[in-house]
Amino acid sequence: MSESHGSITLKHHIHEYQVIGTRPVRHDGADKVTGRAQYGSDVRLSGMLQGFILRSPIAHGKILSLDTTEAENFPGVHAVVTGADLPAASDRVAELGEGSVNLRHLSANVLAKDKVLYQGHAIAAVAADNIHIAEEAAKLIKIEFEKLPVELDVRHAMQTDAAVLNDDVRTVEFGETIFDSPTNVAAKYVYEQGDPEDAFSKADVVIEKEFRTATVHQGYIEPHTSTALWHGDGRCTVWTSTQGAFSVRHQLAELLEIPLTWIKVVPTEIGGGFGGKISVYEQPVALLLSKKSSRPVQVTMNRTDVFQATGPTPGSYIRVKLGADSNGKLIAADAYLAYEAGAYPGSPVNAGCMCILACYDIPNARVEGYDVCVNKPRTNAYRAPGSTNAAFAVEAVVDEIAEKLSVDPLQFRIDNAAKEGTRRPDGVVYPKIGLVECLEAIRDSDHYKSKLEGPNRGRGVGSGFWFNAGLKSSVTVNVNSDGRVSLIEGSTDIGGTRTSLSMQLAETLGIAAEDVQPIVADTDSVGYTDVTGGSRVTLATGMAVHEAGLKIRDQMCERAARIWECDVTDVRYEDDGTIAGPDGKQMSFVELANKIIATGESITASASISAPASSNAFGVHCADIEVDPDTGKVEILRYTAAQDAGTAIHPAYVEGQIQGGVAQGVGWGLNEEYVYNKDGLLMNANFLDYRMPTCFDLPNIDAIIVEVPNPDHPYGVRGVGEVPICPPPATLNAAIHNAVGVRMNELPMSPPRVLHELLKNS
Amino acid sequence: MSESHGSITLKHHIHEYQVIGTRPVRHDGADKVTGRAQYGSDVRLSGMLQGFILRSPIAHGKILSLDTTEAENFPGVHAVVTGADLPAASDRVAELGEGSVNLRHLSANVLAKDKVLYQGHAIAAVAADNIHIAEEAAKLIKIEFEKLPVELDVRHAMQTDAAVLNDDVRTVEFGETIFDSPTNVAAKYVYEQGDPEDAFSKADVVIEKEFRTATVHQGYIEPHTSTALWHGDGRCTVWTSTQGAFSVRHQLAELLEIPLTWIKVVPTEIGGGFGGKISVYEQPVALLLSKKSSRPVQVTMNRTDVFQATGPTPGSYIRVKLGADSNGKLIAADAYLAYEAGAYPGSPVNAGCMCILACYDIPNARVEGYDVCVNKPRTNAYRAPGSTNAAFAVEAVVDEIAEKLSVDPLQFRIDNAAKEGTRRPDGVVYPKIGLVECLEAIRDSDHYKSKLEGPNRGRGVGSGFWFNAGLKSSVTVNVNSDGRVSLIEGSTDIGGTRTSLSMQLAETLGIAAEDVQPIVADTDSVGYTDVTGGSRVTLATGMAVHEAGLKIRDQMCERAARIWECDVTDVRYEDDGTIAGPDGKQMSFVELANKIIATGESITASASISAPASSNAFGVHCADIEVDPDTGKVEILRYTAAQDAGTAIHPAYVEGQIQGGVAQGVGWGLNEEYVYNKDGLLMNANFLDYRMPTCFDLPNIDAIIVEVPNPDHPYGVRGVGEVPICPPPATLNAAIHNAVGVRMNELPMSPPRVLHELLKNS
Repeated sequence: MSESHGSITLKHHIHEYQVIGTRPVRHDGADKVTGRAQYGSDVRLSGMLQGFILRSPIAHGKILSLDTTEAENFPGVHAVVTGADLPAASDRVAELGEGSVNLRHLSANVLAKDKVLYQGHAIAAVAADNIHIAEEAAKLIKIEFEKLPVELDVRHAMQTDAAVLNDDVRTVEFGETIFDSPTNVAAKYVYEQGDPEDAFSKADVVIEKEFRTATVHQGYIEPHTSTALWHGDGRCTVWTSTQGAFSVRHQLAELLEIPLTWIKVVPTEIGGGFGGKISVYEQPVALLLSKKSSRPVQVTMNRTDVFQATGPTPGSYIRVKLGADSNGKLIAADAYLAYEAGAYPGSPVNAGCMCILACYDIPNARVEGYDVCVNKPRTNAYRAPGSTNAAFAVEAVVDEIAEKLSVDPLQFRIDNAAKEGTRRPDGVVYPKIGLVECLEAIRDSDHYKSKLEGPNRGRGVGSGFWFNAGLKSSVTVNVNSDGRVSLIEGSTDIGGTRTSLSMQLAETLGIAAEDVQPIVADTDSVGYTDVTGGSRVTLATGMAVHEAGLKIRDQMCERAARIWECDVTDVRYEDDGTIAGPDGKQMSFVELANKIIATGESITASASISAPASSNAFGVHCADIEVDPDTGKVEILRYTAAQDAGTAIHPAYVEGQIQGGVAQGVGWGLNEEYVYNKDGLLMNANFLDYRMPTCFDLPNIDAIIVEVPNPDHPYGVRGVGEVPICPPPATLNAAIHNAVGVRMNELPMSPPRVLHELLKNS
Repeated sequence: MSESHGSITLKHHIHEYQVIGTRPVRHDGADKVTGRAQYGSDVRLSGMLQGFILRSPIAHGKILSLDTTEAENFPGVHAVVTGADLPAASDRVAELGEGSVNLRHLSANVLAKDKVLYQGHAIAAVAADNIHIAEEAAKLIKIEFEKLPVELDVRHAMQTDAAVLNDDVRTVEFGETIFDSPTNVAAKYVYEQGDPEDAFSKADVVIEKEFRTATVHQGYIEPHTSTALWHGDGRCTVWTSTQGAFSVRHQLAELLEIPLTWIKVVPTEIGGGFGGKISVYEQPVALLLSKKSSRPVQVTMNRTDVFQATGPTPGSYIRVKLGADSNGKLIAADAYLAYEAGAYPGSPVNAGCMCILACYDIPNARVEGYDVCVNKPRTNAYRAPGSTNAAFAVEAVVDEIAEKLSVDPLQFRIDNAAKEGTRRPDGVVYPKIGLVECLEAIRDSDHYKSKLEGPNRGRGVGSGFWFNAGLKSSVTVNVNSDGRVSLIEGSTDIGGTRTSLSMQLAETLGIAAEDVQPIVADTDSVGYTDVTGGSRVTLATGMAVHEAGLKIRDQMCERAARIWECDVTDVRYEDDGTIAGPDGKQMSFVELANKIIATGESITASASISAPASSNAFGVHCADIEVDPDTGKVEILRYTAAQDAGTAIHPAYVEGQIQGGVAQGVGWGLNEEYVYNKDGLLMNANFLDYRMPTCFDLPNIDAIIVEVPNPDHPYGVRGVGEVPICPPPATLNAAIHNAVGVRMNELPMSPPRVLHELLKNS
């Protein structure tokens, strides 16, 4: 175990706040540490049934026949559903707030129609008096398969001799079909700027390497669980563990052809999501079972279901070529990314393409990416989706170039860092960003300045980038007569956003964070709000909170003017929440709140915003490690992560996000992987065999919060949740090289793989 | 069973509406008829305990000792609470939205401190793994009482030799203490106008009579039930069957000394309230048990608990003296009302005083009322609280005067009816009201014009009055992308207000009622809203709905202007929901709603109103009955009720309110009463012995909806829920007199009492 060196904040601004930057106890803390928080499976309804989903035992095959008769007749069974119970979804693409989704594929993933595309693919479901009856009955469902060849390798799946998973998939490049026959290659992305070919020819140093990364899972503690009630008149209610209640509502409306407004989605407390709880899985199944049984139905996945059949992040093949001149300036880049989409198109390869060169100012660059179907579960978002794979690849080549040029790898990154005005190959030109400040924060840190000694020990640095999504958020604020306020918001709280939003409202109103009562509302009870994802909530919902707070300030002034019988223009709202009027009159926020009921209507304000997607998050990490030369095991001795938070609303939660992201990045880097046999069967679909880091594997992680305020946010906030997962695999790879001289090119860098490289070198 | 003659609407206005006045299916209909609605006892929480309340076996006594040790040690028991667990509430009066409440009395009613004041008075409570364990454990609680004399008669309780229930009660007259020793007479009210003494001396006919009415219960089907969760950090959540979630929140905050904002009250579906589900009973007990056990606790009353220990409406003694001149004009009135408060002060005698002469234009009048404690449960509101007792008394005297003057009793009422400009003794001067129109509606009805023949048959008419409360309401409206809207409101729906509010929003927006999704929200999720009571929701929350609808219209116009790139002043919102722009451009509401997500922030509006309490509701009833001379049983042959609804938003629900009110009034008039023995023990605390009317006892009730629009409401609405309960006892009394010549002066006019009067007369 490493020693803790503490976390610090480096401010690059002069703002002084009263609440922002403090560390109040989180509003949902007591509930979570005392077992009172209501998670998905805590939902109990009168007459509720339990549902069990029958899943494919094979990785690729046609369903020749499906007979549910015996299961339907099993005592205690109330309903059996199959893919035939889903409306025949068209190939229509539904525009959800956070992106578009192919309904036919989403529907087929929820319950297979004619084919199964991965082990664990849902085929049928049974609702019964209890889960044991449901499970027994499911065994009576008879299915005949015609097995098909299994595609597990992303590069082979792209070949013309590959088994094609989806007959309807064509290769599309920015909306244009470029290959009009059935294929596993669903999309191609190309971004280019300058003249890379010419630049490479002029480069003094050129390095090109290939990389592979494994499929890894988000590993949230709480499995997916939903409870559905079909109301009998077409209306329905779904309680579910989700990152986006409105997204679930929209997906259900589209999939089941129910009017949007007739679906109420109640988000329960969520035991982790990291991107994996946006797409629907069991929700439509529970709803169909409820409709058929006329009873509420709860469906809870077990851990094996979660591994086999939810959305891990893609394995990938990446090739990176970089060229630098003798001055140590990167002048040319070429990157090729092929990401596994899993069973249906939709990998985050496009994000990977945009991220891979995002930390560097390279005038001549080309990036090409492919989205490729393979017989694995349909991938889904996982914390900065697509960026960690890309960072692992590009940072290794950057590290090698710096070494070739005999430049300190951190100085090399500072010299080539993206900054305000840098243009990315995808065309984005950065506004004010904080990458250089993060690099300098590491350079100037105790950690980087400290000496690392001893055999098989090494130090590495790595950078990472992630966007901040903007999207839409709505809130309502009610002032209660005790001087506290209720904050109704539609953003489910995964990472402490109840508190980060309450603090922004408290700052706006000049009251204490504890005097804001945040409520995560259902889809009926708050205005439209996009998913909790893309590091957007503290940023974007925070903007809505600020706007609502300003409206409340105005109403409080109006009320004071009514009470004082003066003109509202003579009333000022002070930053400490004092309402000041003419002739030295004043009332505190609480005093005025006490008078609301007696003096008229209640004071309440709603705000809805559509936030610009302009904020950019960067992180730079530094790791000291020691490699056990006998086993290849990597032990982390010290870890420091610097990250531009814009403004850290609640520094402890920013540190928590950084530490959590590093922990997941370390797992991804060193141990985690989906292990398939040749038939496409997942060999390690449980927490014993799927090796996530425990507290014994992780060091204390020191966070350096860099504050370069986001100019587009009233308090300068940048999203902080995702980028800390990006640098760790790359950082650890650099450290391994520094320690024992080998350069890894495949994730995870698990003991056998590291040992293999050590033995090759020895 | 009587034949149905159908219901009709008589419009006294020229408004034309698209949605208002139609009869859509109610939004909560499917849930309620298919068993899917979630009532209080449907709440289930993980680890939830059941609570049992131990109640007093005697009607009046001191608690000498209370030992809960054995109960606490009983296996399966998690917590035992007594009055000692309640904070020592001061004598402070808390101002709730709908009135003030003495906290010390409220607290002592929730769990007795040193005295028990009625049979069933809560003394202690046990939370255990199940209700059976809790009940067994409660039997182990040892209590020693010192029995005290029991006061059951309102007139005796006022005497100086009466046993005084509450040492702290003094007689107060409009804020002034007028009798400064312990007494059962908690309040005196006097209203006077003109010179009654002089007027009586000039009257040609003077009639004075005494009346008594029994204690009756609202008889809602769903007993009180609450589930409480103390969150461990002081915050708490209470799910409860209530008419006012905000009122419960406020009472809990005051009683338990918890910050208001830290309490979230979730109103479940409510199985009837009629005024009886405003005060808290089991809610604070459940919360204390949850705090002590660290577990969620559910407390559900049984029917006996409900009869013994919730708030029935008071029995009363009333004396009325009226004088008329020879022209048939009422010129003098004198009324004396003594209402039983039950154990603690707070009967609706003041409302009785204001209502008793409210239907008449009498220039010289005096009304005197007394609020008197007796050893019965603390009374509470019941549909037009205080008015039905008063109407029974005054209408009997009016009937007798008309008879003396040989004037048709209906014509006599028309001649003396209150109208715009009439001043009531309490000082109110009426704006436009619809009493005359109701009287004329009955006069002109088929029923009144029909001949009634046969022995022991008679016809009677009676009038009634009730205020409409205004108070505060908040709503939020969200436009969803499918073109439907969500309406979030804080008014619990007892009588179809989800639909009456949705219809007003639909009218404002020019959309269908079915395209509004109404949601009754918890106290965290909507702005402050007063109780559902005082016939105020369709009226007052309707005003908030209208205001929010206007804001939505504005935002829709702004959005259309943004899309069309034109000035917003060039955009019109048509009454059918079409948004029309320049150059003939137009979009339907749905078309524009579809574009909201793609074109910016969501469209949402909140509105909070403080409604004027100016609306006045009148009803006039006509009944044909037959008396069985051998048993005294009254059978209703035909019943017609006319009522001014202002504007009937949903005529079927107005008819339903009228019919429901009549049904309850008939029960009150003919059968219902609390039967006490001399020790103050309730002999009929169950639905077998407490005789409510069933469908076999009731006729088809024909409703005549009179529409004299309320000038203070955008759609002319008057509250309709309460006034129909007022006239029935009086109407039936007049009919009995008309049938068999006896005048009843005590409620209920049950077979034994009618027979007794018949035998006296024969």
